[in-house]
Amino acid sequence: MSLIPALEALLGKTNVLTGPDTARLSRDWMGTYEGAPLAVARPGSTAEVAATVKLAAEHGIPVIPISGNTGLTGATYTEGGLLLSTERLNRIRDIRPSSRLAIVEAGVILSRLHDAAADHDLYFPLWFGARGSAMIGGVLSTNAGGSNVLRYGSTRALCLGLEVVLPDGQILDLMSELHKDNSGYDLKDLFIGAEGTLGIITAAVMKLVPAPRAHATATLAARSLPDALILLNRLQAATGGLVEAFEYMPADYMTRLEKVRPDLGIPFPAHRDCTILVEVAATAPALTTETAQGTLPLTDLLEDTLAALMEEGLILDATLARSSTQRAAMWARREAAAELGAAVKPMIDSDIALPLDKVETFLTRIAPRLDAIAPGAETLTVAHLGDGNLHFSVYPGDPSKDLYDRVITAIEDIVQDLGGSFSAEHGVGLSKLPSMARRKNPVALDLMRKIKRAIDPANLMNPGKVIPPK
Amino acid sequence: MSLIPALEALLGKTNVLTGPDTARLSRDWMGTYEGAPLAVARPGSTAEVAATVKLAAEHGIPVIPISGNTGLTGATYTEGGLLLSTERLNRIRDIRPSSRLAIVEAGVILSRLHDAAADHDLYFPLWFGARGSAMIGGVLSTNAGGSNVLRYGSTRALCLGLEVVLPDGQILDLMSELHKDNSGYDLKDLFIGAEGTLGIITAAVMKLVPAPRAHATATLAARSLPDALILLNRLQAATGGLVEAFEYMPADYMTRLEKVRPDLGIPFPAHRDCTILVEVAATAPALTTETAQGTLPLTDLLEDTLAALMEEGLILDATLARSSTQRAAMWARREAAAELGAAVKPMIDSDIALPLDKVETFLTRIAPRLDAIAPGAETLTVAHLGDGNLHFSVYPGDPSKDLYDRVITAIEDIVQDLGGSFSAEHGVGLSKLPSMARRKNPVALDLMRKIKRAIDPANLMNPGKVIPPK
Repeated sequence: MSLIPALEALLGKTNVLTGPDTARLSRDWMGTYEGAPLAVARPGSTAEVAATVKLAAEHGIPVIPISGNTGLTGATYTEGGLLLSTERLNRIRDIRPSSRLAIVEAGVILSRLHDAAADHDLYFPLWFGARGSAMIGGVLSTNAGGSNVLRYGSTRALCLGLEVVLPDGQILDLMSELHKDNSGYDLKDLFIGAEGTLGIITAAVMKLVPAPRAHATATLAARSLPDALILLNRLQAATGGLVEAFEYMPADYMTRLEKVRPDLGIPFPAHRDCTILVEVAATAPALTTETAQGTLPLTDLLEDTLAALMEEGLILDATLARSSTQRAAMWARREAAAELGAAVKPMIDSDIALPLDKVETFLTRIAPRLDAIAPGAETLTVAHLGDGNLHFSVYPGDPSKDLYDRVITAIEDIVQDLGGSFSAEHGVGLSKLPSMARRKNPVALDLMRKIKRAIDPANLMNPGKVIPPK
Repeated sequence: MSLIPALEALLGKTNVLTGPDTARLSRDWMGTYEGAPLAVARPGSTAEVAATVKLAAEHGIPVIPISGNTGLTGATYTEGGLLLSTERLNRIRDIRPSSRLAIVEAGVILSRLHDAAADHDLYFPLWFGARGSAMIGGVLSTNAGGSNVLRYGSTRALCLGLEVVLPDGQILDLMSELHKDNSGYDLKDLFIGAEGTLGIITAAVMKLVPAPRAHATATLAARSLPDALILLNRLQAATGGLVEAFEYMPADYMTRLEKVRPDLGIPFPAHRDCTILVEVAATAPALTTETAQGTLPLTDLLEDTLAALMEEGLILDATLARSSTQRAAMWARREAAAELGAAVKPMIDSDIALPLDKVETFLTRIAPRLDAIAPGAETLTVAHLGDGNLHFSVYPGDPSKDLYDRVITAIEDIVQDLGGSFSAEHGVGLSKLPSMARRKNPVALDLMRKIKRAIDPANLMNPGKVIPPK
């Protein structure tokens, strides 16, 4: 029997999509990658995922896992491979409030986990724009980051246990709830961030944290990037490390915001160079119980710190969110980033990480190089400044491959020189393969190839992604 | 040329120890494992480690890394292998206070890193009894835990970057200072906790945290273990997660303490069943600045929480440390654990992890099983209760292998049934190999074997450790 009827027999006809029915998953949401999968399989359980992977392996057909389809690197693109959608693996198997953990399947949408945790006064602290579509499987496979990494770490840091279907169809049960376990190699972290090239993540044990009882949020215009970092350190010292988000939006961001989303407003029309969105959050009653003056100590801390820095001239202007509506309006500006990015084509995007104190150096050095390569090119910059992660995009007008390569090379040269990474939180997929080949330590690449061969000798798990050919 | 003269030519005669000169490293500190290494090599740089590994590989001689020799599982035992001591790789290459990180070599003693961080008002938050001897290389190779895991995580969570010499003598430079980096597989975490079976860790980038400005420490007698967990949750809520240590010492611990270290005193002679050492620490001025009453808000928080629970009857007695001397005295009782453990032979020790709410179940179930197997056997229990890590030792009087196996089997049966791990923080080494064979998921074991073969095909890196033969 050929693969498709065999899959239909296994999963039921409605769970094997072919032809035009595959369209919603074969094209990435940015419209950059449009593939032609053999079919989309929608298994409904871990056992069905295992059987699907086995069947595909028997037919020598590659398997490419896909969950929320919100990726940015073409990691789910395939010509002729079998897309394995996790959308029916959508159970929250358990929430254990006293142990502060959630046991979830790969197809659970991130915002559903946020809601489920909130029902128990808990919080799943992974937060980014696509949270309404992104699913746990993809979030783990790309080791997603977002705005809260500064305080809680990337997805990796939030995962206690994992269930994985291996390339040979065996189920690897690492669903530990333990905070300490030194029984052999750390297999879990090998699958997190592997983008489906070593196996398919089907479920996970994720950490939850106490839901913050109060947030204090502000938008401010700093005099400069180094001044913004002084603010970050002062705030961390004053609050004992309660800063949850520290987002940087410079002048190019404001220009594009004004053009594409004028409804959202520009916070400080006279000071556009260094806009920061900052949020602190607390659970301790000492910080979240209203004072006799009717204010929250947490808000007072933020306000006092901002006031002191304004006094010193490091901050030029600032607005504190006085209501949840004002807080939402501040976040809306930051979360428009994807929309702003997609508004102009062609775009050359990057997702780079730098040592915290090197972000300004990067911006200072890249400007003249861009001027030389693509005079007059528009840029769009937005950064999770608290963890050194910069999304820097260039709009050169001209879509030529040569220009693209020269811009990326310029960015990567500086990033490498500053000890940074060309891939901070979006992963490698297809789009960063050339960067992997050019910039990744060859000893590390060689080791990755050995590991890939050892675990997936037939090279059927999302082949051609993450690791460039030798 | 045979290996020893070749090594002498490479490293100098004084850095190749043979015969009786190897004694201080060929015997573990507990005296359980006494090997007979071919020699001890003491390379002084990463390049020398690489050359040493290459030479040994050419001669087909296994290489076993050893650093502080404070391990508890026989992971550095060898008959005929080359011990590679990291003791001369002892440079703190850099401390970067503004980035809160330290770049250290594998032979740096843990307490030296504590001191170096303290010079910058920073803290390296890995803390356990052997800190005066243990070195970074061993700490990373075993993913060491200790008393502060509850707040800061195990060693793995504190490491940003790694430098490793691979089995073929290549140097793998993963010395990243980045907080986000998704450029391919997570190689770093594969070497952390691999106990030298995949390569030799020579240096690392470790995170530092702001030094706490104030500690509040107490010893208390809880009514029961579940009551102690209620205290932990209340304290975490009141402080916003500032509990650094939550250590459990039951009646058997107090009995042995009284016998072996009477000088340290018993905190509550009338209430010995559930003694807890708790410590909270803060950096925020709001908690660490003296009040008008001359007390610290942090201490007040701890005192108030304890008082409320005493009122409710969950706590039977409590003492707050009012000075650093009192704090040190409280810690001395807890840190006597290794000494108390070694005081009676034969000892059957364990290092188990359990879901937090299952620790009491374990103790309730193991007691009758022990009574049946080894009637009258003394036990010694001490736990990092905040992360579910229990060190449970049995002293059966009789050293027979059969009795040992029956005791371990009884412990492991219950641990496995409760979803725990037979190896929490000490690693596997030699002593836990049978447990790996019996208890570890066979799919996971098979995957570990594949990874080991892929990276170390000649099986020369600390062979025979961690992964049991098939």
